[in-house]
Amino acid sequence: MKVFDVLFGRPLSSDESHSIQISPAVGIPIFGLDGLTSAAYGPEAAMTLLIPLGFWGVQHYLLPIFGLILTLLTILYFSYRQTIEAYPNGGGSFTVASENLGDKAGLFAAAALMIDYVLTAAVGISAGVTALVSAFQETKYGPQLHQHQLLMCLVILTGIALVNMRGVKETGVVFMLPTILFVGTLLATIGWGVFQALMTHGHPVAHYAPPSPVDNPLHKFAGWLLVYLLLKAFSSGCAAMTGVEAVSNGVTAFKEPRSHNANVTLTVIIGILIILLFGLSYVARAYGVTAMDPNATSYQSVLSIEVSAVFGRQWFYFLTMGSVLAALSFSANTAFADFPRMARAIAGQDYLPHVFLLRGRRLLFSHGIYALTTLTAVILIIFDGVTDRLIPLYAIGAFLAFTLSQAGMVRHWHKTLDAPHRHVKMFVNGLGAVATGITLCVLLFSKFLEGAWVTAILVPLLIAAMMGVKRHYTRVRAETIDPTPLRLTGLAPPIVVIPMAGWDKVTEKAMRFGMLMSPLVKVVHVDSDDADALGKVWEQMVLIPVREHQMALPELVTVRSSYRNILTPLIDYVMELEEEFPGRKIAVLLPELVVRHWWEYLLHGQRVQLLKLLLLLKGNQRIVVVNIPWYL
Amino acid sequence: MKVFDVLFGRPLSSDESHSIQISPAVGIPIFGLDGLTSAAYGPEAAMTLLIPLGFWGVQHYLLPIFGLILTLLTILYFSYRQTIEAYPNGGGSFTVASENLGDKAGLFAAAALMIDYVLTAAVGISAGVTALVSAFQETKYGPQLHQHQLLMCLVILTGIALVNMRGVKETGVVFMLPTILFVGTLLATIGWGVFQALMTHGHPVAHYAPPSPVDNPLHKFAGWLLVYLLLKAFSSGCAAMTGVEAVSNGVTAFKEPRSHNANVTLTVIIGILIILLFGLSYVARAYGVTAMDPNATSYQSVLSIEVSAVFGRQWFYFLTMGSVLAALSFSANTAFADFPRMARAIAGQDYLPHVFLLRGRRLLFSHGIYALTTLTAVILIIFDGVTDRLIPLYAIGAFLAFTLSQAGMVRHWHKTLDAPHRHVKMFVNGLGAVATGITLCVLLFSKFLEGAWVTAILVPLLIAAMMGVKRHYTRVRAETIDPTPLRLTGLAPPIVVIPMAGWDKVTEKAMRFGMLMSPLVKVVHVDSDDADALGKVWEQMVLIPVREHQMALPELVTVRSSYRNILTPLIDYVMELEEEFPGRKIAVLLPELVVRHWWEYLLHGQRVQLLKLLLLLKGNQRIVVVNIPWYL
Repeated sequence: MKVFDVLFGRPLSSDESHSIQISPAVGIPIFGLDGLTSAAYGPEAAMTLLIPLGFWGVQHYLLPIFGLILTLLTILYFSYRQTIEAYPNGGGSFTVASENLGDKAGLFAAAALMIDYVLTAAVGISAGVTALVSAFQETKYGPQLHQHQLLMCLVILTGIALVNMRGVKETGVVFMLPTILFVGTLLATIGWGVFQALMTHGHPVAHYAPPSPVDNPLHKFAGWLLVYLLLKAFSSGCAAMTGVEAVSNGVTAFKEPRSHNANVTLTVIIGILIILLFGLSYVARAYGVTAMDPNATSYQSVLSIEVSAVFGRQWFYFLTMGSVLAALSFSANTAFADFPRMARAIAGQDYLPHVFLLRGRRLLFSHGIYALTTLTAVILIIFDGVTDRLIPLYAIGAFLAFTLSQAGMVRHWHKTLDAPHRHVKMFVNGLGAVATGITLCVLLFSKFLEGAWVTAILVPLLIAAMMGVKRHYTRVRAETIDPTPLRLTGLAPPIVVIPMAGWDKVTEKAMRFGMLMSPLVKVVHVDSDDADALGKVWEQMVLIPVREHQMALPELVTVRSSYRNILTPLIDYVMELEEEFPGRKIAVLLPELVVRHWWEYLLHGQRVQLLKLLLLLKGNQRIVVVNIPWYL
Repeated sequence: MKVFDVLFGRPLSSDESHSIQISPAVGIPIFGLDGLTSAAYGPEAAMTLLIPLGFWGVQHYLLPIFGLILTLLTILYFSYRQTIEAYPNGGGSFTVASENLGDKAGLFAAAALMIDYVLTAAVGISAGVTALVSAFQETKYGPQLHQHQLLMCLVILTGIALVNMRGVKETGVVFMLPTILFVGTLLATIGWGVFQALMTHGHPVAHYAPPSPVDNPLHKFAGWLLVYLLLKAFSSGCAAMTGVEAVSNGVTAFKEPRSHNANVTLTVIIGILIILLFGLSYVARAYGVTAMDPNATSYQSVLSIEVSAVFGRQWFYFLTMGSVLAALSFSANTAFADFPRMARAIAGQDYLPHVFLLRGRRLLFSHGIYALTTLTAVILIIFDGVTDRLIPLYAIGAFLAFTLSQAGMVRHWHKTLDAPHRHVKMFVNGLGAVATGITLCVLLFSKFLEGAWVTAILVPLLIAAMMGVKRHYTRVRAETIDPTPLRLTGLAPPIVVIPMAGWDKVTEKAMRFGMLMSPLVKVVHVDSDDADALGKVWEQMVLIPVREHQMALPELVTVRSSYRNILTPLIDYVMELEEEFPGRKIAVLLPELVVRHWWEYLLHGQRVQLLKLLLLLKGNQRIVVVNIPWYL
């Protein structure tokens, strides 16, 4: 137990919930890592799609595409500030959409976000590992690392899950250093790159020449095909925005004043993200960096090419790539911080199993962590730990949730007549809704065949499942609700049934208990061989003492079993009794041997367990099972 | 249920046991296949060891070695005839040894035989498959079959297990044709081979020339090394005798007169076996057949070489090899016929779990069949379905059992003063004991390093396990035996404990039952958040009606849980009650929701199940659990 406490922290009492609340400094690594690290793979995803356009494509289209992405990000920032202020108790998309647009819309957002969080965790971890493999690409360890990509992903997943089992606050502290290193090294790269570019009038000399762009005859293509390609590149770049939802959903994790602290966190995260996205694409353009075909044997990520171009391959390169790896892997943590909270909100409306409502020993919603870990592991295993195949699935869910949440906010301001500047606020959220809605359409259009259709199938399935869960809970509540006081009329002692193989202490204990419960005791002996061996024992051991005490005589019932089966005749007998005495309760007393070691259970039949199960399955409200344990 | 009946036969009533008894004709395939088919691999095993001696070795040593083996077999035959006559209720080694030499000796024989039966099944099946692979060696299917050797073994194992689930008699009928074919084709091969040899004055011309013997410089070696080699070849040949025990153990399977029918069966089996062993080694010598290195790519079994030498590779060759395959695979059946009977005999003395005593729906000892199937599958998987690696482990167990059984018989005749010719009988069994004892020493000496040490480790482990089982049963019996009549003094109603989350129909049902059982009802509410919400409901729903009926008032106990754990405070409360009221029984009533579909269980915590388990583990004789099922 001590080791367990050291690993996972001491259990927290329910009164201590204030002690796990966080400040913005801790909030940035927790809620921001996902958003920030998308700077490491978002541009790459967009640039990979520009490969067919060659060097020329990057020079012409990269900055405009990122300009668009940054504009969208700014709109989102202002929209979500308002959500956080309006929902100081947590304004995740599920809450906002279901409160303002109805349960269906809420479920829609919830399903989309659940898929997205699992993907966030999977994409984060596998992107981190890809970065590591990329860094060691040209060393002798390269091929070996490449082989064990999935294993590394699963190890990191386990690590993150374990850290999260300690608590949100501890997680933030653990992940603060990687966050600082990640942001710091990338800012240094951008700073030095921009400085070099300015000093050389836009033509810096790379320390380590970027691989020459793929020479492709297609690079002159234009018209609708070009538009389609650019839309696709834009969609891929949008992956960089998926972390924005996190803060609004996790407002309750912050110290008071919650909304203020959450908004400070959001501002810092978005500010840094904008600098990183803009800076990295500027430097890429200046140094003539293009993405490489991910299937090429000497494949390197854009970030790796960029950092080696600016600084060369010395210690700083490895520090940068190391912190990118760490930050990317840990970006999965945002999902771990948010998924359990969201699951709690959904379960609170009966749409998910109530187990998600329980706070674990560290006051966390532990079952959410278990569920997310399991689902992420499944996804990683199915996709063999390679990000690229996951990215098309990604972002759809986030933008669906964005759109629903912003639309919900518009409705919120519409209803809240006393809010100051409500028309301005409505406009901001409306702009957010329109912008994210358009992006969602672009995403769906450009990514549908590549995998977005999976989301399109999964979302309705998830919604159906959640509605099924709600139906179940509603039915159970309707069937068990009891508005009337305790009825005490018609209380008749039950008919007691005791199976007996022979006279021993176990049977005696059961009979003492049974005779106490009711004057109507039936001791059933299932007999496959000789019939009357027990009669004499019964007379001597039971009937004589009962007569002496002038109590009601128990009845010995012998049931014949021609097929050596003990259970069926017993259950048949109980069912017959039930028909014979309508309205009477029947208590079946099952003597059960409790042994000291597990292997001893192998030496005793599991008949009692099987009988219990069968009685439960075949029985009804009137049949009650009493376990009479016998300790050896 | 109908399909099940067609597959496994209708269930047999306990009165029908006569209908499953067998005649010698059916007994031969059941108990004889193992012995008879050892003619197919015993000589091969011996000849493989003569490879280093080359052609010359076979010419000089094969017949003497087989002469020795046949002599031993004859001695065993006469010894076992006497055992069968003396033990008409089944004279397996376990029974004979434990009755005459004490339980320890019996366990020794039992452990050895159990290992041996598992090996019999595994060796039989894998030898059959090896024969099949050998037959198709030079066709295009050869390599493919070689790859799927393990799979084929497991398929055959499953088939044999299924046939055996129908019953012993049915098994005999199914396996009669393969037995006749096996014996018939081999006899034809021997007959034609001997005839040809005689016609050509000992120099018959092979239809299909045997592969030339390995040219080995070692073929002149002599002295102790030669003796050792010959001893090893002899030991390997002894595998041909392991099936002899079967008949004596299965006497009860025969129709009356049992002993007579069993002895007829034994005579036929041994007679045919002697002809086959002698004939096959004679033909091998005449045609100059030597064994091939089993690791050679073009490996063929000795039998395959021999049959193609005598008849060439036409239809008869394929018929012969096919029936060898069938017979070998089905020889595993002897283990299936005997192992369950033996397990039953051992379990009858409390040395194995009592589950082996139960007769299944077809009056078989089904659990023995399950156990044997599982163990054989494990062995086949571990050894990847290749016989050769199993043979060194084999035969040791059988000869250990032979020796103990024969020694036991000597003691039996010594005790049975009124037996006619008891000194002659004692001599015959004594000769058997000495001969098998010497063979056992030879086997241990020559095979120890090759794998017999595994048996030497397993046997004591098994004996220890069986003694542990007996100790357990003895203790249980001592602790539960009850020589006194039912005590009816000191019957006090139990203290009833009912956990309650809130007022609903489930709780009401439990309370109605609880108030009926005892005037002392404690309803426990574990509270982690607000303490007094239930108070008002309790007053209105419970106390008022109870006062109206002038019954004893139940008590509402609120237990505070700071760490959100429901189970621990509940169990702590029960334990406190137990200390507070020494000698009183405590009945914990657990309302349990029974849902219609398995997935609905995911929506309800398994707390009740966990609570039951914890109460069972932490509880004692005085704590009783009552399940109050609530059907939705």
